[in-house]
Amino acid sequence: MPINDVTEALVRHRRFLLTSHYNPDGDNIASQLALASILRSLNKQVAIVDQDPVPGRYRFLPGWESIGNQMVPQNASCVVVLDCGNIDRIGKVSDIITPATMELVNIDHHVSNTLYGHFHYVDPEASSTCELILRLAQKLRVKPTPEQAQIILTGMMSDTGGFRYASTSADTLRAAGLLSDYGAKIAEVAEQLYYQQPINQLKILGELLSRLKTGAKGKLAYMSLTQELIKRYDFDLSESEEFVKYALAVKGAEVAILFKEQGDGVIRVSFRAKGRVDVNQLAGKFGGGGHISAAGARLNTTLEDAVQKVVQMAEAELSSN
Amino acid sequence: MPINDVTEALVRHRRFLLTSHYNPDGDNIASQLALASILRSLNKQVAIVDQDPVPGRYRFLPGWESIGNQMVPQNASCVVVLDCGNIDRIGKVSDIITPATMELVNIDHHVSNTLYGHFHYVDPEASSTCELILRLAQKLRVKPTPEQAQIILTGMMSDTGGFRYASTSADTLRAAGLLSDYGAKIAEVAEQLYYQQPINQLKILGELLSRLKTGAKGKLAYMSLTQELIKRYDFDLSESEEFVKYALAVKGAEVAILFKEQGDGVIRVSFRAKGRVDVNQLAGKFGGGGHISAAGARLNTTLEDAVQKVVQMAEAELSSN
Repeated sequence: MPINDVTEALVRHRRFLLTSHYNPDGDNIASQLALASILRSLNKQVAIVDQDPVPGRYRFLPGWESIGNQMVPQNASCVVVLDCGNIDRIGKVSDIITPATMELVNIDHHVSNTLYGHFHYVDPEASSTCELILRLAQKLRVKPTPEQAQIILTGMMSDTGGFRYASTSADTLRAAGLLSDYGAKIAEVAEQLYYQQPINQLKILGELLSRLKTGAKGKLAYMSLTQELIKRYDFDLSESEEFVKYALAVKGAEVAILFKEQGDGVIRVSFRAKGRVDVNQLAGKFGGGGHISAAGARLNTTLEDAVQKVVQMAEAELSSN
Repeated sequence: MPINDVTEALVRHRRFLLTSHYNPDGDNIASQLALASILRSLNKQVAIVDQDPVPGRYRFLPGWESIGNQMVPQNASCVVVLDCGNIDRIGKVSDIITPATMELVNIDHHVSNTLYGHFHYVDPEASSTCELILRLAQKLRVKPTPEQAQIILTGMMSDTGGFRYASTSADTLRAAGLLSDYGAKIAEVAEQLYYQQPINQLKILGELLSRLKTGAKGKLAYMSLTQELIKRYDFDLSESEEFVKYALAVKGAEVAILFKEQGDGVIRVSFRAKGRVDVNQLAGKFGGGGHISAAGARLNTTLEDAVQKVVQMAEAELSSN
């Protein structure tokens, strides 16, 4: 973790391009915004360019409008890639990078980071890239403003599930305390991240939970989002990403599944696991995939048939465990 | 906050009775267990006696079985009342206290604390009574064991909604960092607090959410836990502590209220706020109390009447804001 090489590069250059991975999340958006703001306070020119737009749920972060809407500053001499284990994950932004004239700096906390770039500061022990931005600010002797502190705290909370994941270390908590000293308001961040749900979203979640089913002697919990419910609540299916996590809260459940009836003959299936079951493999049996603890698949069939087949397969997996 | 008077009392006495409020929650259970364990490490005799049994959801806390099942030790000379704003909230435990022969110590973080007892350590700035237990341990030069640290962290997380409420200060976060150093595992606590819910609890929560109502132009969200639902799901009312928070997740809601029909002519009302509204004051209008952002009251009436009166009062408060 040669942090000094990175801070020296940040001091040396005057014109920066900041970027990060596609499919943005809270930490990569916040780490770009925070670093950009810190660099600007040091009289640097900074542009943030990402392949994908900022999702609606993160559009409370100050400065989000600047992402991807700015031209690269004339003669940017340094590209800082944030929160990207692999440089390929910046996607189309690679088109505007000219390696011959630009220094590449890699700041990340993914254990899979390939250590690309001229300089890197990679710490897999850190909860989030934002936690690293705070350390860089300290090295640069920049005291974060209350706004900067709150942006950094947002990224940290976003990547730790609100300090609930095992990635939350003692250092993470102390860093959050320091950010709080600097003026970050934890309740405001929590409010933005967790307490701004449209009422129809909560009501339809209620309908799902009240119909929660279990299988495999309680190791499986599953729910079905039917077209009837979607129409009754005038619900946008893209807002249902978090629902499956609620089923995983059932005591004893190791796998949770949410079936979503799209209404066009396709059933989307979301899998989550907290036990040792590999839902990536389970989703793979239906042509899908993802990660060990979070995966998805699509079935061209009826809801009843999809539930019957997927639940049967999940029960077989869980009983062999 | 004369902490030294309290630590001196803890050092001076040898036989303790610890107690707390009825309708137990995570912080009052954890603070009793943690202080009991710390006192025992100083070779003190300690019994914990509470009016109400430990709710199922907190029965992962080491030592919970000892609560209320022990006789008062012969000649207990000191009663420590934890997390109780008012001594009346210990309920029937007052029957076994003999004020003539016992010193009374009051350790609490409720702003409404009446400063009863011979000695008190009351800090309304603290997130939780458990945060005060950590400070007392430090004063007593006791380094918490990993188990004690995890119990204290559980109470802190429980009373701050997992570090989401405004009561989470920089000191709270640093205290959590210190507890993590001492061996507390934040992900284990989060798993126990948030991912171990009995299925009937999630189903009944679903029923409540699907019936969520709003008032005061969306600034108020409220739900009713009826006897019909309680019976249908064979539900233990003491497991409903967290439900009201879900109503507060509605976008635009500043106050959330949960009405609980006890079935004995009493309606219990839980208030939560995320805006500037003081629900302690609101609850006070119905003979209840608590904190600015979390309070409760009891009404001797029907569910319909309680809903009508409390919603009307809340709407009046919210429209004058």
